[in-house]
Amino acid sequence: MTAQMKLGAFLWATGHHIAAWRHPKAHVTAGVDIDHYVQLARTAEAAKFDMIFCEDAAGLREANIGIASQTSRSIGFEPVSLLSALAVQTSRIGLVSTASTSYNEPYGLARTFLSLDHLSGGRAGWNLVTSASPIEAANFGSTGLRPHADRYERAREFAEVVTGLWQGKASAHDGQSFSVRDPLDLPRSPQGAPVMVQAGASDVGRDLAARTADVVFTAAQTFDEAKAFYDDLKGRMAAYGREPDDIKIMPGVSPVVAETEAEARDKHEELQELIPDDVGVALLSSYLSISDLWRYPIDGPLPELPESEGMKSRQALVVEQSRRDGLSIRQLARHFAGARGHWRIVGTAAQVADELQARFEDGAADGFNVMPSYFPGELDAFATLVVPELRRRGLFRKDYEGRTLRDHLGLKRPV
Amino acid sequence: MTAQMKLGAFLWATGHHIAAWRHPKAHVTAGVDIDHYVQLARTAEAAKFDMIFCEDAAGLREANIGIASQTSRSIGFEPVSLLSALAVQTSRIGLVSTASTSYNEPYGLARTFLSLDHLSGGRAGWNLVTSASPIEAANFGSTGLRPHADRYERAREFAEVVTGLWQGKASAHDGQSFSVRDPLDLPRSPQGAPVMVQAGASDVGRDLAARTADVVFTAAQTFDEAKAFYDDLKGRMAAYGREPDDIKIMPGVSPVVAETEAEARDKHEELQELIPDDVGVALLSSYLSISDLWRYPIDGPLPELPESEGMKSRQALVVEQSRRDGLSIRQLARHFAGARGHWRIVGTAAQVADELQARFEDGAADGFNVMPSYFPGELDAFATLVVPELRRRGLFRKDYEGRTLRDHLGLKRPV
Repeated sequence: MTAQMKLGAFLWATGHHIAAWRHPKAHVTAGVDIDHYVQLARTAEAAKFDMIFCEDAAGLREANIGIASQTSRSIGFEPVSLLSALAVQTSRIGLVSTASTSYNEPYGLARTFLSLDHLSGGRAGWNLVTSASPIEAANFGSTGLRPHADRYERAREFAEVVTGLWQGKASAHDGQSFSVRDPLDLPRSPQGAPVMVQAGASDVGRDLAARTADVVFTAAQTFDEAKAFYDDLKGRMAAYGREPDDIKIMPGVSPVVAETEAEARDKHEELQELIPDDVGVALLSSYLSISDLWRYPIDGPLPELPESEGMKSRQALVVEQSRRDGLSIRQLARHFAGARGHWRIVGTAAQVADELQARFEDGAADGFNVMPSYFPGELDAFATLVVPELRRRGLFRKDYEGRTLRDHLGLKRPV
Repeated sequence: MTAQMKLGAFLWATGHHIAAWRHPKAHVTAGVDIDHYVQLARTAEAAKFDMIFCEDAAGLREANIGIASQTSRSIGFEPVSLLSALAVQTSRIGLVSTASTSYNEPYGLARTFLSLDHLSGGRAGWNLVTSASPIEAANFGSTGLRPHADRYERAREFAEVVTGLWQGKASAHDGQSFSVRDPLDLPRSPQGAPVMVQAGASDVGRDLAARTADVVFTAAQTFDEAKAFYDDLKGRMAAYGREPDDIKIMPGVSPVVAETEAEARDKHEELQELIPDDVGVALLSSYLSISDLWRYPIDGPLPELPESEGMKSRQALVVEQSRRDGLSIRQLARHFAGARGHWRIVGTAAQVADELQARFEDGAADGFNVMPSYFPGELDAFATLVVPELRRRGLFRKDYEGRTLRDHLGLKRPV
């Protein structure tokens, strides 16, 4: 049998395109409409996606409240409560939520995710993030954002404690940041342990993933970037006694698909035209971890950037693209706002499938986290147009073969 | 119209009786069986209870793992994830979960409960606890249990921040324990704000409740205790500019009900006989916040107790009963293990209704939090025998009149 790719459906309020809320078919209050999410989850499950995926941040997504209110994710459910509700409205699809190692404690987090895992019969996953946003930091005391290296050292210990608790280890933990005495008040997971997802792409982020992740979500614009990341991460695993196949690397992809290429291009252009310049620039600012980008001429180049304690890898991605294509601030803003820094494919089902197949078969991805530009329209389009095309090529499952998220992903069950 | 009492259904794994898991009809893995909880929630909703109520502790419920494994709540879902799942399996009943002010941050907690509130269309409530158990403290760093007064000072500020966030206050908070800059990324609650429940019964706990609670859950064995607590708490409210009716006081009650009194007594005796002495003594130890009760002769009196930093009010309740009735350690253990320190009524529906009516009409309660000794049997018995009897007397609703938990409880909507 041909190897088959893994697919995630990354749910995000009105859609991943920053102007999705302005789309004529947009559902503006989607972020707090449980019926909307139930519909999306059932669409993804009917299409046999491996999992649905939710981001999280304990705070506004943009520093400027005026700007925040003009994005496609100004309001939304806290994701673990959302996924707990979806757990009883679905039966097979995996349920992955992001949660922070900076603003939680490992005992509480391990317990909540294992509870979700039991609620769903072994379908839960945790996407570990260290929280790079100073907006969140300001809601959790005045200590400010921790330096990047400190965040990752805390995250490493955090992951170790959580994994130990999930595996029912009897021994207590007494470490640098955390001390935990007892086991959890929950039985072992139906899938051995919830799935561990990570997305850090800096050097220290990759090492943490190579050591502990089951799935890695990543952003790569070009094939070369994707391939370099893939080879680098898989290459780091041997040092931790792991096989390359123990991690599934799933880059984000934001497809705009239609029956004809012209129709797909029109759909995409319609969305791009809806991006207000100030919103695009604000989003770019947050990717660059600087606050005064608006001071620079919008049709000029990026200024020199200070050393960042934020998302180093995201900043590098923007700077790299800026240099490669000689883009102005306005052009960069529009480009990144469109797909939030992720890979975008605009075309027919066959064209989208060609691109996915190439990255999958040429060793740049084990699957993809699909980021529809608006909901439900673009998720429906992917499910009805692209998924059948992938299936015809033998690249995606016709039905679930197992019951747990680890079954779907083909991951080992932890001992 | 006669005033009507409020009713909560306190769900707790196999049942509130400590030996419920040994009952021939017990469902031993009930704590992690979502179908079990859906059934209980639907039973309570069909009977028109105001709310279901869940306790919480981030750790084992007993210090000794051997003892913990022999109680009716050795395993169980984390309650906010549980209630999020129940939110989409019910449509009218309120959903109240306990959460700690010691092991959470106010921004995260406010967000999670407001998310549950939106998931359920305005049916969420938060039962604030300060966490008196050293077992939990040991899972959140080695700093140990904070002194009682410090816990309550942190809780007071915590409640102030959470209430402010729920009410969409624009102003940032910069206080002793917490600093929070931004509003939540969620719209205002469908019921104005989630309902605030409290259970602290010490002097400082009562003051906090008088200032901020909408509902108070309490433990009282006798009418006089219940009445004294009721009058004291309602009397404290004027100092905070509140009307007595702004808080609903709902003592816990653990009824054992059957068609005949003899049958009810047999049911109760059958459960009492199932309590192992070591488990009863361990539970009593935790109520007294001491660890070496097992060293004293089991048929002798309680020893002198040291000053406690644990649950002061629960300790006082045990000591009071011990003096009043001259009970030995074994007798006290069996008595408190049975209903976990709460009021127990054994009898027919008419007898149970008489007792509830007396406390309700004579100003000792605004309603009751019903703690069935085992599930689903005793919840079913209350719903089919006692609720119709209360309804015949005009003491309980025939149907819901509103849609939110505040509607059911007759609480003001916060401005």
